[in-house]
Amino acid sequence: MIEEIKGVATGSSSIILGDDAIAELLTAIHKFDKVFLLVDENTNQYCLPKIGGSQNGFFDFKIIIPSGEANKNLKTVEQIWKILIEENANRKSLIVNLGGGTVTDIGGFAAATFMRGISFINLPTTLLAMIDAAIGGKTGIDFDDFKNYIGAFRLPDMVYIVPRFLESLDERQMRAGFAEMLKHALVAGVELWNAIQSISQVSLDALIPLIPAAVRIKTDIISRDFTERGERQKLNFGHTVGHAIETFLLGKGKSILHGEAVAVGMFVEAYLAKEAHLLPEEDFAAIRDLIKKYYTLPSFETNDLSEIFHLMKYDKKNEKGEIYFSIPNRIGHCLIRQTFTDGQIAESLESCLLKQTGIKKEPNQARTDSRSG
Amino acid sequence: MIEEIKGVATGSSSIILGDDAIAELLTAIHKFDKVFLLVDENTNQYCLPKIGGSQNGFFDFKIIIPSGEANKNLKTVEQIWKILIEENANRKSLIVNLGGGTVTDIGGFAAATFMRGISFINLPTTLLAMIDAAIGGKTGIDFDDFKNYIGAFRLPDMVYIVPRFLESLDERQMRAGFAEMLKHALVAGVELWNAIQSISQVSLDALIPLIPAAVRIKTDIISRDFTERGERQKLNFGHTVGHAIETFLLGKGKSILHGEAVAVGMFVEAYLAKEAHLLPEEDFAAIRDLIKKYYTLPSFETNDLSEIFHLMKYDKKNEKGEIYFSIPNRIGHCLIRQTFTDGQIAESLESCLLKQTGIKKEPNQARTDSRSG
Repeated sequence: MIEEIKGVATGSSSIILGDDAIAELLTAIHKFDKVFLLVDENTNQYCLPKIGGSQNGFFDFKIIIPSGEANKNLKTVEQIWKILIEENANRKSLIVNLGGGTVTDIGGFAAATFMRGISFINLPTTLLAMIDAAIGGKTGIDFDDFKNYIGAFRLPDMVYIVPRFLESLDERQMRAGFAEMLKHALVAGVELWNAIQSISQVSLDALIPLIPAAVRIKTDIISRDFTERGERQKLNFGHTVGHAIETFLLGKGKSILHGEAVAVGMFVEAYLAKEAHLLPEEDFAAIRDLIKKYYTLPSFETNDLSEIFHLMKYDKKNEKGEIYFSIPNRIGHCLIRQTFTDGQIAESLESCLLKQTGIKKEPNQARTDSRSG
Repeated sequence: MIEEIKGVATGSSSIILGDDAIAELLTAIHKFDKVFLLVDENTNQYCLPKIGGSQNGFFDFKIIIPSGEANKNLKTVEQIWKILIEENANRKSLIVNLGGGTVTDIGGFAAATFMRGISFINLPTTLLAMIDAAIGGKTGIDFDDFKNYIGAFRLPDMVYIVPRFLESLDERQMRAGFAEMLKHALVAGVELWNAIQSISQVSLDALIPLIPAAVRIKTDIISRDFTERGERQKLNFGHTVGHAIETFLLGKGKSILHGEAVAVGMFVEAYLAKEAHLLPEEDFAAIRDLIKKYYTLPSFETNDLSEIFHLMKYDKKNEKGEIYFSIPNRIGHCLIRQTFTDGQIAESLESCLLKQTGIKKEPNQARTDSRSG
């Protein structure tokens, strides 16, 4: 299977899907002066060998960065820039990013800013990167613990989506990627939603056939709104609450994957939309059932929920202190820039995520308020 | 006088010329959430007061950076990013860059990369910035002593060219800016060239009326080739030799302005073009006479010229070790990607810039060759 999606956003980027895409990649890179391969420790070990026999031949230099979002910072990018200079990269050079969203974000940003922009190609290795992180032209790094604060909108020259890379992914990673697929369906893809309804588990066999549809939903949206002035914000469904939960848990040293947090966020935000009579009851019920089928929702103490609310409310990206939500008003359709009262938001968090115990515990509301002030 | 040039390159940037442009700026900034003013120590002292009485009202935060290219580095950009975060800049915020090319380069890059790009407006204060640095969408910083290696192509939302800022400029700075004006004329503006012939000195009165034509030459070119794949390279006339001379002299702790180096570079490159029978003798003579009228050409020892040649030859930006020149084939027309033999280039450097002394001095050719190898 080879499928090609052309002309995403600016017309300069193409996406090639299929296990034979590697052959196309190996042809495409010939026109570049020098090829730099960016991998992390994991993709170097598990994915690079899957490219096949002549892997030593296709790149000139390999840059291996440590795995994990903790390294998605300016220091890593500076080291990449230094290597590019040392190895005489010029405007005709290419960076091939082989990895998940962290690698494609970092490598894309390094390429977007080196000599005011050199070419880069993404070879996403996770489901999440294939259908989301690697295809939208959002590149960047975390800065001073602020996630994705420094970056650039810059499409890769090409994206090659090679399903066999997914073979090295564990089920938890698959499920995390599946959350973004589900999100694409809920905001703009009723047909994909129907297809998702018919699968019984998040297995490779079940999900690979759904990748092209998920990719198209995203590329259609960004072809109309590349720099997220409006419609692209639909893709943030689940992310307002999800991002706060992710930040809260990671801050407590607990493990959560971005996709898992988005799944929880979608659940809470769909509930919020239902309560505000924006989303029909039956659509909410369908979303709830599907999310509960694949994800275990975390539960929190009241104080934790206050903290999560506080993280949303005082997110520096908010304009004039207002929290904007992107929420579906029916399955496959999404409203952007929706606002709710603090009470509505807090109530949704509690209804969806409050720990159920026999013992009742009452927060000191006065103290919570003053901490949020 | 207010003149407006619309639709540069991507159609999103406009340039407003005239002393009344400030009034337009003060209206335009109202739509932004927060306004950050970036100045250096000089423009803070000499230019900001010229904006007029209500200067305290038009921005929310002022960021003052030290003057000089030495600060055009990642450290300065990091500090700007930090301040933007501290002061809750968001996607609707604006950076106004008030300064010469160094300030507009730094501020433009900080804006281009903060939250994947926020708006910025350039208020150039030098002649060079008005007709060149601030209007082309090249933003960036030096990295590890490599000039402009990190950056982005990103047009400002608006450029306001306010001639009265030039009142604080000394004659040497004016002359440096004039070199880029001359270059614009030589590569693509025979009418501007004719106008330049008719002035007698690089005074404010003589040069201000020429600014609109110089701006138009540049914006016309970049509207056809924003990211410098081809035609925009014309604007590099004089820069191949000029950049090497600038690097050489600055490395020796000697003072030279970028524009001065470009003037010398144009002289040598025009000579090279004449010797290669690409540029007619009479056109070369006219260029030579004009450059000699306004600039004192430096002279060098043979060994210095070898070093300057070496800097050109081993410039990391060269593709496959080839030095490409942009040179006029007649006044107002320019060829790009021209190559010459090492002998031709060395001979031009010597003919134009070798120190004339009664004493004859012979370099050890073998040693020079081995150093260049």
